[in-house]
Amino acid sequence: MRLKLRNIFLVYFVVSSAGLLYALLQLGQQCDCTRQTKPPHDVHRWENTRPRGGENLPVIYVVTPTHARPHQRAELTRLSQTLLLVPDLHWILVEDSAARTTLVADLLAQSKLPYTHLNTLTPPAMKLKDSDPNWLKPRGVEQRNEALRWLRENRSPTDHGVVYFADDDNTYSVKIFEEMRNTQKVSVWPVGLVGGLRYEGPLVTGGKVVGFHTAWKTHRPFPIDMAGFAVSLALLLNHPKAQFDPNAERGFLESSLLGPLVAVGELEPKADNCTKVCTYTQYNN
Amino acid sequence: MRLKLRNIFLVYFVVSSAGLLYALLQLGQQCDCTRQTKPPHDVHRWENTRPRGGENLPVIYVVTPTHARPHQRAELTRLSQTLLLVPDLHWILVEDSAARTTLVADLLAQSKLPYTHLNTLTPPAMKLKDSDPNWLKPRGVEQRNEALRWLRENRSPTDHGVVYFADDDNTYSVKIFEEMRNTQKVSVWPVGLVGGLRYEGPLVTGGKVVGFHTAWKTHRPFPIDMAGFAVSLALLLNHPKAQFDPNAERGFLESSLLGPLVAVGELEPKADNCTKVCTYTQYNN
Repeated sequence: MRLKLRNIFLVYFVVSSAGLLYALLQLGQQCDCTRQTKPPHDVHRWENTRPRGGENLPVIYVVTPTHARPHQRAELTRLSQTLLLVPDLHWILVEDSAARTTLVADLLAQSKLPYTHLNTLTPPAMKLKDSDPNWLKPRGVEQRNEALRWLRENRSPTDHGVVYFADDDNTYSVKIFEEMRNTQKVSVWPVGLVGGLRYEGPLVTGGKVVGFHTAWKTHRPFPIDMAGFAVSLALLLNHPKAQFDPNAERGFLESSLLGPLVAVGELEPKADNCTKVCTYTQYNN
Repeated sequence: MRLKLRNIFLVYFVVSSAGLLYALLQLGQQCDCTRQTKPPHDVHRWENTRPRGGENLPVIYVVTPTHARPHQRAELTRLSQTLLLVPDLHWILVEDSAARTTLVADLLAQSKLPYTHLNTLTPPAMKLKDSDPNWLKPRGVEQRNEALRWLRENRSPTDHGVVYFADDDNTYSVKIFEEMRNTQKVSVWPVGLVGGLRYEGPLVTGGKVVGFHTAWKTHRPFPIDMAGFAVSLALLLNHPKAQFDPNAERGFLESSLLGPLVAVGELEPKADNCTKVCTYTQYNN
């Protein structure tokens, strides 16, 4: 009996010493954070695993129309690196093309972002010619609407999310993404370097939008830039016909989407009651 | 004797079981990575705690001249967000001004980057007038040299580091920073959208730079863009007179620094033997 007990203890002693030693070594190590921060990839060619937003943070769906031109890769690289700093984000990149291109597919695959890669061609009559000034026809309309179509087919109102239309040639401070994340209907904020002004944006009194600081086509129902608002996913899904109007007069694109969705008084002001500028439109022509 | 042994074993059994249980619980936990990724801040007004590079990774010192203009904040926001993705980096931002401005100081304080904030005025005779084309006089020369002066006063050749001159209006893929980190003397790579070409850069055969793909002033000793090379800190400190020549002919600024430091054959080609483009010069005028 004695012999058995002693053996049991001896074996236990050896095993537990080994275990304790291992544990002591582990507790001194630094965390390997890379495994946790790398998003999972699936092999589906045009999509990367996306967070659903459910019980976690609402997902920010960033919709970016893009088209081929010499500095396209530079612009998309820059934007993707900004988006990498924002958690729970899903990038929907829509090419103005007959087919998804390798340039964009490769960039997305290397971006480490959750993404969806779509494409749709702008009808020839609506397409800017090389010699046209870039304001002559609206750009990216069909592409943004294609993203809305994808969201309606692949998401439901119980997927908590916010949709932001971020063109590939603007500048976004990461702060604006956290500002927009808890949008209930439509949130708004100022945008820098728009319409000949240092900034354009809503005027806020008592926490409510009461007007707009703008110098161009002031009669627009929503005189705000594409970069200056975000819409809750649920609101878009509950209004299945809401989309951008490709025939809208210049400057009225944003109003064509927002008009049916929300009243000015319901807009949710962000960025310190719209006193801080966190996004800037492109200033290169 | 027997009793003593049994007691010893009993005590050991209890203690080790507790230890093993604790270790098992710990190994099941997720890492708390946030503590490791937030850089420490000190209260020194113009500087943020900087990593020294010593036994860790070499530090990348990014030198950026900047000057006041409407889109300055947008450009610096965009660049700072790219730099945030690069570990062991120290940003040296040098204003072309008589004093450090609040705009830049605030941006740096909020950037979460290790930084040094400097300023030096370009002499009036060397300064671009608003009506001058932006290529008429070189920009940022005194500011880059001021950064070199700071490095020589505050670092020693035993501080492992690399110096990269990154202007605030270019685009940088984060990949290029890892490429440059182990620079021994001077490393080089192609740059997109330069000098009328889709890219400009070194030609490499057998792992050595044998020429340059360029279309403009091909007789330059180093026909490469400011964004297309990095210099080891030790090399700069061991050549205390090496700096940019403010009187250099247009396009010869890079050569004025590199000429005394390195021969073409000693250049270290990066980015897959200079076949990949990871940086792009500004294409907005």
